[in-house]
Amino acid sequence: MTKEQIADQFKALQNTITQTLETADAKAKFKEDTWNREGGGGGRSRIIANGNIIEKGGVNFSAVHGRLPQKIKSKLKIECDDFFATGVSLIMHPENPHVPIVHMNVRYFELTDGNYWFGGGIDLTPIYIDKKEAADFHQALKLICDKHHPEFYSKFKTWADDYFFLTHRNETRGVGGIFFDHLNESTGLSKNEIFNFVIEIGQLFAPLYAKIMTKNAKKSYNAQEKDWQLHRRGRYVEFNLLQDKGTRFGIDTNGRAESILVSMPPEVKWTYQYEIEANSPEDKTIKLLKKGINWIEYS
Amino acid sequence: MTKEQIADQFKALQNTITQTLETADAKAKFKEDTWNREGGGGGRSRIIANGNIIEKGGVNFSAVHGRLPQKIKSKLKIECDDFFATGVSLIMHPENPHVPIVHMNVRYFELTDGNYWFGGGIDLTPIYIDKKEAADFHQALKLICDKHHPEFYSKFKTWADDYFFLTHRNETRGVGGIFFDHLNESTGLSKNEIFNFVIEIGQLFAPLYAKIMTKNAKKSYNAQEKDWQLHRRGRYVEFNLLQDKGTRFGIDTNGRAESILVSMPPEVKWTYQYEIEANSPEDKTIKLLKKGINWIEYS
Repeated sequence: MTKEQIADQFKALQNTITQTLETADAKAKFKEDTWNREGGGGGRSRIIANGNIIEKGGVNFSAVHGRLPQKIKSKLKIECDDFFATGVSLIMHPENPHVPIVHMNVRYFELTDGNYWFGGGIDLTPIYIDKKEAADFHQALKLICDKHHPEFYSKFKTWADDYFFLTHRNETRGVGGIFFDHLNESTGLSKNEIFNFVIEIGQLFAPLYAKIMTKNAKKSYNAQEKDWQLHRRGRYVEFNLLQDKGTRFGIDTNGRAESILVSMPPEVKWTYQYEIEANSPEDKTIKLLKKGINWIEYS
Repeated sequence: MTKEQIADQFKALQNTITQTLETADAKAKFKEDTWNREGGGGGRSRIIANGNIIEKGGVNFSAVHGRLPQKIKSKLKIECDDFFATGVSLIMHPENPHVPIVHMNVRYFELTDGNYWFGGGIDLTPIYIDKKEAADFHQALKLICDKHHPEFYSKFKTWADDYFFLTHRNETRGVGGIFFDHLNESTGLSKNEIFNFVIEIGQLFAPLYAKIMTKNAKKSYNAQEKDWQLHRRGRYVEFNLLQDKGTRFGIDTNGRAESILVSMPPEVKWTYQYEIEANSPEDKTIKLLKKGINWIEYS
């Protein structure tokens, strides 16, 4: 499995994802921008806006290479000077507050000294948590994980809880999912086997989310629910800009800002100490933004 | 000048600032929250919302102390374990796109090993740049700077250009102002003299900004101008969460999230590749978001 083959497969994955999402949205079409990175490589950004269901979203493919900035070398404790990185990364911001925000990423990183690793993850951020939906989502992830390694689901579910956690708010971003990084032969799987796991996670995403989109977009919503969504999107912004390592890596390697920040929601609100009523649906959601919930129990 | 005296004077500064801003707004009143920090110290947050002119803003006073987190020690290359920090920090988000966003901060930092320094700054972020207004703003800052040190204005103006710069967007946050940090006896001034400079900058802020508020709030605006403001606020969010060291310090020292993030605008928009017309007022503003402009020339 060469880096070119991995990049090609990721590019093909971007195709199938954008096709499935277009079909599910049934109105908006992705617009494509290809770009080159000063320093090496480039990418293909596909952006969707003002759809029936998706208000704003992006599916990015990139394959970049070049010198590692000193900042990254220190952070990752790497001695090697040159890197290659390819991946697919997406975020969807639906218009209807009953449709969860979603994020998916698969990536491959290789150094000229021969070291390589895979990383990625999927996580779901409902504005209003539906326990059964969270359970189905986790169950689907677990099925793929279990197929490849008996420990993957429990390890990567916990990793997602820890990663998608807003320390300063003491809350998880949503109902989590899976997160993994630095996967190589030390997992006991071969490079091909890890790649197969990663690509299956990527392929799982679109049909899984399309179902969630279609089901929830039929629900009506009121002004208060919309307002809550706009405020929850604020938390999403806080996570992505303050904490997310992918965003930071993109910014620190002089990535294309418009592509990296396509993750920003279309419209956001911040209110100082936004008040919610005790036992309201908003309050119930907040109380579920905790690490360590075994969602599958709610099946 | 003890750290307690400095904190008291900063607290008094918060008072005069909130009074002047309330008078200028002529509708909204600041609401106060006092808070204690786990680990030592606390603060007094004053929040204003839905005014005649100010849509959302906060003036924070804090005086915190305790153990320095390892993260901060490494970043600041400090060996000492304990710190004391006090300051006033504010951001105002006006409703009318013709009234610039403003930020001001004065701060004092002391280590138990006897080292101390002052820092601070003011910068103005117009949604539409008015060169004459930028000139008057810089002239007022220069007057105070020149009174204390012949090199302060040119040094701190350049520092602001460099600090309030969004690398990933290749643009300054606005028309800048002054920024300074690590001021101690190495400036050639005594501790008292530096404090006098810092407090005069703090005292300059409210009357200077009140004048800008009052003048511009009379201007009418249309939907397109409002939309442009909401998008420019997005850049403000990007700067504060991706780059601002004060925000990062607050988050990393487990500061009170609601107080730190009161800097977030009330409502924000992001559009992928937001389009502006050539030679439009928006385009003219973008073209002035550059380092190294000698604004005083436009007097």
